[in-house]
Amino acid sequence: MKGSVTADNSDPYRFTPVGHVHSCFKEKFGIPRQPGLVSEACATLELEPPYNRNEALVGLEGFSHIWIIFVFHEAMREQWRATVRPPRLGGNQRIGVFASRSPFRPNPVGMSVVKLERVECDGGRCLLHLRGIDLLDGTPVLDIKPYLPYADALPEADGGYAAESPTSAIPVTFSELAEAQCTERERNGTLGLRRLVEQVLSLDPRPAYYGYGDNKYADRARTNKNNAGEEKKNNEKQLFAMRLHDFDLHWKVKADHVEVLELRPVSDI
Amino acid sequence: MKGSVTADNSDPYRFTPVGHVHSCFKEKFGIPRQPGLVSEACATLELEPPYNRNEALVGLEGFSHIWIIFVFHEAMREQWRATVRPPRLGGNQRIGVFASRSPFRPNPVGMSVVKLERVECDGGRCLLHLRGIDLLDGTPVLDIKPYLPYADALPEADGGYAAESPTSAIPVTFSELAEAQCTERERNGTLGLRRLVEQVLSLDPRPAYYGYGDNKYADRARTNKNNAGEEKKNNEKQLFAMRLHDFDLHWKVKADHVEVLELRPVSDI
Repeated sequence: MKGSVTADNSDPYRFTPVGHVHSCFKEKFGIPRQPGLVSEACATLELEPPYNRNEALVGLEGFSHIWIIFVFHEAMREQWRATVRPPRLGGNQRIGVFASRSPFRPNPVGMSVVKLERVECDGGRCLLHLRGIDLLDGTPVLDIKPYLPYADALPEADGGYAAESPTSAIPVTFSELAEAQCTERERNGTLGLRRLVEQVLSLDPRPAYYGYGDNKYADRARTNKNNAGEEKKNNEKQLFAMRLHDFDLHWKVKADHVEVLELRPVSDI
Repeated sequence: MKGSVTADNSDPYRFTPVGHVHSCFKEKFGIPRQPGLVSEACATLELEPPYNRNEALVGLEGFSHIWIIFVFHEAMREQWRATVRPPRLGGNQRIGVFASRSPFRPNPVGMSVVKLERVECDGGRCLLHLRGIDLLDGTPVLDIKPYLPYADALPEADGGYAAESPTSAIPVTFSELAEAQCTERERNGTLGLRRLVEQVLSLDPRPAYYGYGDNKYADRARTNKNNAGEEKKNNEKQLFAMRLHDFDLHWKVKADHVEVLELRPVSDI
């Protein structure tokens, strides 16, 4: 029927996930703010029954990149807010929620273009191996679409307040302990781990209200409380941790670089 | 909670539209197959309460393009199919539904990047003026996001079987009647109408199983039945019509071009 759909807000659309993401990012803190920024960030997308059929993926491997349409499942709120404070604007300027890519939005649906490395369908298990992701572990996936450069790539578009890539180049050093832990884990199969850590931290994942080197709001972020007794109070505010794979990554913010301190297995905490 | 979401397919996510599209395309037949192909295809996106607030759009006008995440509301089916036959492959080769941008998919969610011309918020009415659309009139919109060239534009991506733009260049001529009708309607405010008609028809909107000039399946498409008595049977199979704005656009497929015959007001039918 032509144009017969009415604007009835009481009638929601229902969508069931076609799959879920297994990601190295186990918590929101530290996830790159867009896909493609951390090339070493890998994940698998596992299709759920009844979508775990090779047929549904035939032809996908011809595409280098795919769109993942997903639910921001840890950003669901009862109430929506008309404005957000994007990290790009230092976290202190409000813009409209529809002018942002914030996960907190009326319908918490996200879209990320990621590199498709490989499709693996075997014995009822269908996995898409992805790279350059910005997705939380457990993310429910609503749809998978091929990336069409002729339609989707508009390099001349005006990106408003976010026109430039937020590529940061904060130097990252590794403590002797962290270096050894990376080597050990890479030897045991976590390929590219050192580069992953370096890429994630060089983007400065701290909340936007930190300018680099400005720690006055440090108490609002997740800091390493375990070391509180060992460090001076001021020093403590330069310690951070995020969950990655099966460990907590600990690092320290210094004047002109960050130092990776330790990869602490979660079971040790 | 870290990775606590389970793959429970019995628990759908519910999304309520934030707005609806008012489009020149009143039926699926004839809509360009991706956005950006028909620059003259304009639409307005009207935000519904409670989202019809200027605040929610502050900062959006700095972006030249925006993503519309929407529901393919005329492509909702009870049963999903693992494969589709994309027009790009002539409509006779099956590929996986996730390797296509077909509207018929497990979750009928679409994404289109369109040009944002202007935002108009006045007296509780919030309209986004869009250009280069591929959206059906009445499309329910789930989300609006700014297009971020640094993250979304990957011109070097490999577009698989759809690597090249489907830009067709079938010449379009206008009958004397159609020419006069376009002029008249443009004078009355439908700016760019002649170019819209020309752009839409030069893409050959006929179903994919037509090669250009090959009409053997014409009876499966929407043909102009009204003229059946006036034309020879063979001739009739070269006549097509689609609803555009408030008229039916009638055209005829000839050997090396198409001819616009008439813009027939809907009330005349």
